[in-house]
Amino acid sequence: MQIEHGGALDRAVMHFGGPPADWIDLSTGINPEVFPLPVISTAIWNRLPDQMLLASTVEAARIYYGVGSEAGIVAAPGTQALIQILPELKTVGEVAILGPTYQEHAFSFQQAKWHVSHCASIEEISESANVAVIVNPNNPDGRITSVESLVDLARKMHGRGGFLIVDEAFADPHPETSLAAHAGMDGLIILKSFGKFFGLGGLRLGFALTSQGTAERLKLRLGPWAVSGPALVIAAHAFSDAKRLDDYTSRLKIRRKLLADVLAEVKLTEIGGTMLFSLIEFEQAHKLHDELCQKHVLTRKFAYAPHWLRFGLPLDESAASRLHKRLVLAISAVQS
Amino acid sequence: MQIEHGGALDRAVMHFGGPPADWIDLSTGINPEVFPLPVISTAIWNRLPDQMLLASTVEAARIYYGVGSEAGIVAAPGTQALIQILPELKTVGEVAILGPTYQEHAFSFQQAKWHVSHCASIEEISESANVAVIVNPNNPDGRITSVESLVDLARKMHGRGGFLIVDEAFADPHPETSLAAHAGMDGLIILKSFGKFFGLGGLRLGFALTSQGTAERLKLRLGPWAVSGPALVIAAHAFSDAKRLDDYTSRLKIRRKLLADVLAEVKLTEIGGTMLFSLIEFEQAHKLHDELCQKHVLTRKFAYAPHWLRFGLPLDESAASRLHKRLVLAISAVQS
Repeated sequence: MQIEHGGALDRAVMHFGGPPADWIDLSTGINPEVFPLPVISTAIWNRLPDQMLLASTVEAARIYYGVGSEAGIVAAPGTQALIQILPELKTVGEVAILGPTYQEHAFSFQQAKWHVSHCASIEEISESANVAVIVNPNNPDGRITSVESLVDLARKMHGRGGFLIVDEAFADPHPETSLAAHAGMDGLIILKSFGKFFGLGGLRLGFALTSQGTAERLKLRLGPWAVSGPALVIAAHAFSDAKRLDDYTSRLKIRRKLLADVLAEVKLTEIGGTMLFSLIEFEQAHKLHDELCQKHVLTRKFAYAPHWLRFGLPLDESAASRLHKRLVLAISAVQS
Repeated sequence: MQIEHGGALDRAVMHFGGPPADWIDLSTGINPEVFPLPVISTAIWNRLPDQMLLASTVEAARIYYGVGSEAGIVAAPGTQALIQILPELKTVGEVAILGPTYQEHAFSFQQAKWHVSHCASIEEISESANVAVIVNPNNPDGRITSVESLVDLARKMHGRGGFLIVDEAFADPHPETSLAAHAGMDGLIILKSFGKFFGLGGLRLGFALTSQGTAERLKLRLGPWAVSGPALVIAAHAFSDAKRLDDYTSRLKIRRKLLADVLAEVKLTEIGGTMLFSLIEFEQAHKLHDELCQKHVLTRKFAYAPHWLRFGLPLDESAASRLHKRLVLAISAVQS
């Protein structure tokens, strides 16, 4: 089984042709602007990433995410690397996943022989589930679950001998939704993606914020030198540069407005989203996806939701303006 | 339990003081010269590493290592990430490890509840072991096991329902020792470290060369986007640049001779090694290690072998000359 993901521009270009530079890739929720990179010294490339480097990045993450000193923080080569090993923390049981959502959570638990139950709301989580997964804000619809109900749920899952995974991949520009201040409580594992907000999906870096005990088990499972030296240096720099962060966030907001404006102009209805993507509803969303591919715009369609299309952010006004033109043509082709 | 490794310059500096730039770190087997880096485009940092990028790096690795098209190649964020998951390929059994050697193999199997038996030779491997691990050339003594006996052993282990792991972390400059041409045969898993020979320990990149079936299982276990985009680009570039590779290897040979000459001049006896490190025997090796630390030279001592000391390569003549001076002083301090 292969789960479909955004980001497969290579396959789209192979299938629909055109010079790669002409394509507008809006298929992921990754900020299209790379956060300004620091100089990476030769020693960082050469040497195994040492404990001091790791510790300084973890401490910068603690301040950036707002995590108390009692919590454990685990750095991993992408949150995906954590998703792969989370099912091993408990003996096989039942995991409830609030969906529809990012599909790798269910896949990972299935691979580990867990029983996976899909729920549409917290209330639907069965009494027999001892692990729950909630992406918050959710991908792709942007649904937000309140901090209070998540804390309650973590407590409940811990009471059942399990835990709650809150995947905050898209929470950076929505800090009010984050449970980071609660990290360290028993039964709570928060996942943080570095690459999405900071526009560094290629870097592979993510964090788990959790109890000290769970953190130690995850670190042991990942083994030594799990994260590259350049990733640690880049993250420590990005977390700590308040001025650059402010400017960077401002540009993200402008980018998000450019997308909202384009979608409004072509009368596509946003039914959800986050600062990093928009979900629209459209009768023939899959056909629109394919027409957009013909015009070298890659969006994200969903096999399970034929009326949904997810748009990532255009880099700048020029990309937004090209997107607008191509959307007008694609919608008219679909409707003709 | 924490396994001691080389590369912990941060701790040595903290303990013994001195400006980090004054230290000569010879505690690892990583080439001290970073292979010239290519330009890494913004898109590579920004986007998730796509299938086409991964495939092109894997094909470059196939040619560089000399692996036939019938074998599977798995890219991982360091061979350590592979070592962490190899015990999962079979139900718990007995693993024989030819040692003394790199300790993470035993540790990983122990963590996964395998019975670990330590052997000094292939002949000692018990009939009950269904998995064997051989580092070739071995770390730290450089012992080389012949290709023929390794192929035989892989066949035998496969016959017992298991497999042989050949860790070729230090084999790049000793291609005649490599089993890469046999990759693909049942029961054989070869590990390749990218960072050691290419001087890029911070990058975190390694490969498994094995059968298609085992490769698919390892890929599934690692999950999507396991390796960073920059690592894939850098490796594809390094594997393919024959001219640069020749010059780079020549400089490595010079560096190795500089080390051998210094050790000979101070009358330290090399009892083993590879192109990337030397193992010497010395009555009071641990005391010499500590005296060298006082003089800001970090080497690798071994708790299990009080007469051994491993030296990595000095970068250039200046480093070799400083090493020489400090060794003379340290040896004289030990012997006084």
